[in-house]
Amino acid sequence: MADPQDSYEYKYFNVTFPSEHVAHVEINRPEKLNAFVEVMWQNLSKIFTRLSTNPTIRAILLTGAGPRAFTSGLDVVAASQGGTFDHNDNSQDVARRAVALRRHAIEFQACITAVEKCEKPVIALLHGLAYGLAIDIALAADIRLCTNTTQMSVREVDIGIAADIGTLSRLPHAVGSLSWAKEVCLTGRVFGADEALRVGLVSGVGKDKGEAVEMGLQMAEVIAAKSPVAVVGTKEILNYSKDRTVEEGLRYTAVWNSAMLQTEDIKSAMLSGLQKTTPKFSKL
Amino acid sequence: MADPQDSYEYKYFNVTFPSEHVAHVEINRPEKLNAFVEVMWQNLSKIFTRLSTNPTIRAILLTGAGPRAFTSGLDVVAASQGGTFDHNDNSQDVARRAVALRRHAIEFQACITAVEKCEKPVIALLHGLAYGLAIDIALAADIRLCTNTTQMSVREVDIGIAADIGTLSRLPHAVGSLSWAKEVCLTGRVFGADEALRVGLVSGVGKDKGEAVEMGLQMAEVIAAKSPVAVVGTKEILNYSKDRTVEEGLRYTAVWNSAMLQTEDIKSAMLSGLQKTTPKFSKL
Amino acid sequence: MADPQDSYEYKYFNVTFPSEHVAHVEINRPEKLNAFVEVMWQNLSKIFTRLSTNPTIRAILLTGAGPRAFTSGLDVVAASQGGTFDHNDNSQDVARRAVALRRHAIEFQACITAVEKCEKPVIALLHGLAYGLAIDIALAADIRLCTNTTQMSVREVDIGIAADIGTLSRLPHAVGSLSWAKEVCLTGRVFGADEALRVGLVSGVGKDKGEAVEMGLQMAEVIAAKSPVAVVGTKEILNYSKDRTVEEGLRYTAVWNSAMLQTEDIKSAMLSGLQKTTPKFSKL
Amino acid sequence: MADPQDSYEYKYFNVTFPSEHVAHVEINRPEKLNAFVEVMWQNLSKIFTRLSTNPTIRAILLTGAGPRAFTSGLDVVAASQGGTFDHNDNSQDVARRAVALRRHAIEFQACITAVEKCEKPVIALLHGLAYGLAIDIALAADIRLCTNTTQMSVREVDIGIAADIGTLSRLPHAVGSLSWAKEVCLTGRVFGADEALRVGLVSGVGKDKGEAVEMGLQMAEVIAAKSPVAVVGTKEILNYSKDRTVEEGLRYTAVWNSAMLQTEDIKSAMLSGLQKTTPKFSKL
Amino acid sequence: MADPQDSYEYKYFNVTFPSEHVAHVEINRPEKLNAFVEVMWQNLSKIFTRLSTNPTIRAILLTGAGPRAFTSGLDVVAASQGGTFDHNDNSQDVARRAVALRRHAIEFQACITAVEKCEKPVIALLHGLAYGLAIDIALAADIRLCTNTTQMSVREVDIGIAADIGTLSRLPHAVGSLSWAKEVCLTGRVFGADEALRVGLVSGVGKDKGEAVEMGLQMAEVIAAKSPVAVVGTKEILNYSKDRTVEEGLRYTAVWNSAMLQTEDIKSAMLSGLQKTTPKFSKL
Amino acid sequence: MADPQDSYEYKYFNVTFPSEHVAHVEINRPEKLNAFVEVMWQNLSKIFTRLSTNPTIRAILLTGAGPRAFTSGLDVVAASQGGTFDHNDNSQDVARRAVALRRHAIEFQACITAVEKCEKPVIALLHGLAYGLAIDIALAADIRLCTNTTQMSVREVDIGIAADIGTLSRLPHAVGSLSWAKEVCLTGRVFGADEALRVGLVSGVGKDKGEAVEMGLQMAEVIAAKSPVAVVGTKEILNYSKDRTVEEGLRYTAVWNSAMLQTEDIKSAMLSGLQKTTPKFSKL
Repeated sequence: MADPQDSYEYKYFNVTFPSEHVAHVEINRPEKLNAFVEVMWQNLSKIFTRLSTNPTIRAILLTGAGPRAFTSGLDVVAASQGGTFDHNDNSQDVARRAVALRRHAIEFQACITAVEKCEKPVIALLHGLAYGLAIDIALAADIRLCTNTTQMSVREVDIGIAADIGTLSRLPHAVGSLSWAKEVCLTGRVFGADEALRVGLVSGVGKDKGEAVEMGLQMAEVIAAKSPVAVVGTKEILNYSKDRTVEEGLRYTAVWNSAMLQTEDIKSAMLSGLQKTTPKFSKL
Repeated sequence: MADPQDSYEYKYFNVTFPSEHVAHVEINRPEKLNAFVEVMWQNLSKIFTRLSTNPTIRAILLTGAGPRAFTSGLDVVAASQGGTFDHNDNSQDVARRAVALRRHAIEFQACITAVEKCEKPVIALLHGLAYGLAIDIALAADIRLCTNTTQMSVREVDIGIAADIGTLSRLPHAVGSLSWAKEVCLTGRVFGADEALRVGLVSGVGKDKGEAVEMGLQMAEVIAAKSPVAVVGTKEILNYSKDRTVEEGLRYTAVWNSAMLQTEDIKSAMLSGLQKTTPKFSKL
Repeated sequence: MADPQDSYEYKYFNVTFPSEHVAHVEINRPEKLNAFVEVMWQNLSKIFTRLSTNPTIRAILLTGAGPRAFTSGLDVVAASQGGTFDHNDNSQDVARRAVALRRHAIEFQACITAVEKCEKPVIALLHGLAYGLAIDIALAADIRLCTNTTQMSVREVDIGIAADIGTLSRLPHAVGSLSWAKEVCLTGRVFGADEALRVGLVSGVGKDKGEAVEMGLQMAEVIAAKSPVAVVGTKEILNYSKDRTVEEGLRYTAVWNSAMLQTEDIKSAMLSGLQKTTPKFSKL
Repeated sequence: MADPQDSYEYKYFNVTFPSEHVAHVEINRPEKLNAFVEVMWQNLSKIFTRLSTNPTIRAILLTGAGPRAFTSGLDVVAASQGGTFDHNDNSQDVARRAVALRRHAIEFQACITAVEKCEKPVIALLHGLAYGLAIDIALAADIRLCTNTTQMSVREVDIGIAADIGTLSRLPHAVGSLSWAKEVCLTGRVFGADEALRVGLVSGVGKDKGEAVEMGLQMAEVIAAKSPVAVVGTKEILNYSKDRTVEEGLRYTAVWNSAMLQTEDIKSAMLSGLQKTTPKFSKL
Repeated sequence: MADPQDSYEYKYFNVTFPSEHVAHVEINRPEKLNAFVEVMWQNLSKIFTRLSTNPTIRAILLTGAGPRAFTSGLDVVAASQGGTFDHNDNSQDVARRAVALRRHAIEFQACITAVEKCEKPVIALLHGLAYGLAIDIALAADIRLCTNTTQMSVREVDIGIAADIGTLSRLPHAVGSLSWAKEVCLTGRVFGADEALRVGLVSGVGKDKGEAVEMGLQMAEVIAAKSPVAVVGTKEILNYSKDRTVEEGLRYTAVWNSAMLQTEDIKSAMLSGLQKTTPKFSKL
Repeated sequence: MADPQDSYEYKYFNVTFPSEHVAHVEINRPEKLNAFVEVMWQNLSKIFTRLSTNPTIRAILLTGAGPRAFTSGLDVVAASQGGTFDHNDNSQDVARRAVALRRHAIEFQACITAVEKCEKPVIALLHGLAYGLAIDIALAADIRLCTNTTQMSVREVDIGIAADIGTLSRLPHAVGSLSWAKEVCLTGRVFGADEALRVGLVSGVGKDKGEAVEMGLQMAEVIAAKSPVAVVGTKEILNYSKDRTVEEGLRYTAVWNSAMLQTEDIKSAMLSGLQKTTPKFSKL
């Protein structure tokens, strides 16, 4: 259960702890525009699975290293040489290739879903290029920010595939215009901050990467200062409720809070509110 | 079944009938910023349950008394002294406290849901402070308005709890930015009219409370002038469909209208349309 | 299976093929503001059902003929004289009329749903008047555009009915403000391009009909230039996912792509991407 | 919160407490074969709502008074004279009568559903005649017993209605033959103990009413001797899971037990198991 | 709307009307064990779609002609020569063949689902051989009967396919043993009347075909003598409810009956019940 | 991907390969009645996850070692000393213990669900004692067998907990009597083969363990002789469909088979059928 912070070492990711209770995960392959090779999404999954139950962590910022890209998406050259698409071996039965492709998709999806399943909130900062897999990952995060110059694109249609790692399943739940969601998925066109803010894909825009990182860290710190019991419950119930009926959401909430309202955090928070002090909360 | 209008007398609510077929429900505890004590949400439920089947009522405006707040939310002081949180008695078994808390949450949720279940449309006007429970209630209404100076906040996270009376279950269905919804729920920060309009939480903004009340009453009158059969059906089908598949929505609609299209109101409405007269509709 | 293009001849619809792989369907009853009589929605269904599996077609633009209206909706005069509402025959048992009305609604709904079920993406351009049925049809399309002067209205409430052909089931999933959706459905008021863009009902606005048609055709051409396997999959998965949980969406996607990732289109698309050439894709 | 047992006095119901933690609810209108008039289902609802949170009660047996019937169903004569069907007033608009009928059905359904929502398990003993409403009520109970001579029938089809108080919604989930369920609902034919046991409608059959009451009471006592925390959770999770996916069921269970596994009852139960003593559990 | 009975003429089906309000549909290709070729399932769909709204029909019996088989399933020889499986053309792209196969499956499924969607109840009598498609069709019917010598088998696994026309989707909802359902689907083994009755696949068994036809016709006559409003509603609500939650079922039922309880049939049925006469009901 | 069979070595499990394509997994802690300690359910998960994609395996038999028990369930002594219930540490905040218990339950559930997710069919043979966890595991298998002397019990209620590893979520979907399912879950009473067969919990009963193992192995061999593409698809679609609507099941099936019907296995199977030879199928 112990999860020492110094052990978060991965070739393509920097994991740092800029302030108490806050983790900063940085995709770190800037010379390739942070494009993903297979080991990277496996590592992404491992990192967020560990942070999820890391008792000192309460909020996470996810960015890309370097000035040029959050990530340009899947490293297509690498993928075509070996990993993702090499099931296209024509000597094999179509059904057997299908089974292999499905197993692969489920495994890949699970890696991205690890961000959504992470108990602690995740803020994704899209800067520079944010193509394809960038959108898949960002949609599995809770809060999305970008900069004035971010270039975003749901680009999978341009390489002949229907995006299968989450964008098509999550985008219609994340933004307020189904027409727009379909347009960008079907045309693969690039869009920017104004449009992303208008349709609600992002909820904040920084002037440049520096300012946006600052915004993201401050937001993470605000969240990290709250009761972690309340924060974890809020994320879980929002995720549960967003694609179920209101009745189902209410029923789940009532059960969830049957335990959670017994927390000491409520007393601490209320008292601090009255006394204008900063409450201290135990690890979670 | 008779529901005489003069009997809508409740200590903390004013219920008036400013024009034909329109009810105005006012939360009336202005000296405490309209903060809710337990009896109030029970009364809220009773009022909307009665208006729901009151045959003379066709649209309802919900506001807070006084200039300062729609409602500042739960009266935390009162709650901590007796009602909501006193199940936290440590002498009791954790599971038994959990059962008690769940019973309480279900009861409380049902009171707020009475606004959603009210057959007649409800317009909520958020003005001044609209914190915590204010958002829970407003999300159970159909249409939300605010003023240029309304201060809104999903504040529960600040007292150590995941909001359990409806905000977390309804907000993701009500607005067009999941990123924004999560941000305000996780940070508890205050936001204003511009932001609320941009994400779609409100669909109209008045200059001040006076103008906004006027907007709300006019909208209520417009709705009250329509066929109540059509209005009640429209609310019911929208509520049913918003969190179900399109197929389910269509199937329910076809059954609903199998009775409702036999109404005399269609003839009256069409005829009035052609003759440019105002149609009269029977009570519902 | 052969579906010769010259045979798309219908009294009230023009079907043309302005560029390779693109169909343009025009509602053609301009002297009556393109109002719908019964045969028209049957034809609409037939046209989109045929285009759906027409192997040369990859994207479709839907407009109304003439400068004045996309469509003003159901031809109420015609409907009251014979078709839709004549089940209101009082000599018949209420339950039997209900059965007849339900049969009729299901049939009518299925016609509109043919646009949604069309495998190829549909862009609806709302111009001039777009009332009632116009919104039902546009919501069954994938992408919606309008012009600066389009006048839109969910008008059914004004003739005493809850819209039953799809608007109430699809609108809450299509836009980002439930408050706004309820307001326009309950009041029947007219709204314009600014509002439609803000809430996300449309994702693009042209200066006038000419410019908007141009926008629509260009967008159709962009889509038609992509792999049809990717485009058809993208539409299907978005439609599937938009009103289901993320888990369900991911599961369906993984199965869908188990066949579709075996397409030759991926190789063609990737190669063209590297060689900066235009890929050619087989019929679908 | 106090719920003194001596106050369960209702004209048409006997509520007794034959052994510790066990309540026996008896429908008591034997001279009319326990046929239901309107006040009775309102009382039924009230009784089970009270028993649900009555801290001394842990299991409930539901029977009919007298030797002849559990209940012969709705008192059709009374119903035709005033209550249920008098909305059929032809002077009123069809849609308005429809609204009234729907309000009535929802209210009536809620009364029966109170048995299902009762937190404590309910054992229904069907004896003698068990027609129509008898099946609706029994299906809302948890466990069903009958005697060798019980005559059961889903009889609503014989009076021209599709059963709307729960049988059609619950029967397909309760028994193991959809073919049989449809047959008895569509033909209204009488069936007996053998058939009911074979398809799983009942899980036990007594020789006669006396023996079956004994069986029911013993079963209630067995359940009442278990941890009430475990029993209430078992009922709730079974009801939740039976008509949802396994994934949903597991997710809900994990949350439910996050509080409930903290109960003292587990220690008491385990210790008693090892020591072969009878555990004592606190009230719930 | 007129649907003259003498026009039900199809090469491979006999449609007769053995008694008032009852139709008897007989699969008529006995020399080939009633094996299905493509035109047959299209005709099956057409027949049941017509009977569904044929106002004189209230119940339907479905059998196979000749003594040897209800149907031995798909005519595999014919299918392999042209229809169903010839999409397996290796010159075509895998994805395009997949699209063609999916279009075909959806069309084929819709034909079988026409039996389920038929508003009037369908009794399927499985006799002799009832293999593969026989089970798909029977599961789309409402009530299943068989004879002492019927040989049944979910045989698709033996020709290398997962049954895709409905058995795998309907069987788990139709019988009371998931273990048994999986066993017969995974092994393809033949089972007989005893087993089918025990697990609930059939609800009645005749000594031989003659007796079973007699049973089926009598059952159809019993149903045809009830109020068609009640019968149609009972089928619809059972089908709706069987795979949805109880809450959803109850909600749908309340709306359904808001129209249907206004039928004259209730009065007729009640009066006939009191007067011991046979009620007459209008067409539906 | 290579998964050499000789490496399936686990302290408490024997994994053998009694015939081609068949694996036999034996719970191997007979001196403790095969009671489970924590490492065992982790191993169970690992074994079935590996067998799932082991290309030579097509069917799996699961039994317990020794004559006395399939498994007597959780090793309660071990659990109370350290693993499962030690979150009951009273020094910790209730909410934090709840989070820990929920994390634990989800992890534990996932281990059992690995049996359900195993792509290849699993036959569970319940013999001797089959208590608590035995039922959880057996319900995650596809087919259940038992012997004349098997003693089964859903025993969790006796130790004060609502069974949370799957029984309460899966049992109501697996058997044909909700009354019986609730009875055995609420009373914890022991039941035997006759009852299990009657309600459909098992679909076959052997005279003794020896005969039942023989039955299980023969059934596994029958399944292993079929096309693995068909078998894997049949399991997946049955699992998908059993707790969803028929419409959803059909839609998923059509997509699934769009790839799978392109398999060579169909040709092999059909040819073998005609030639009365045994087909050979490639690995999966």
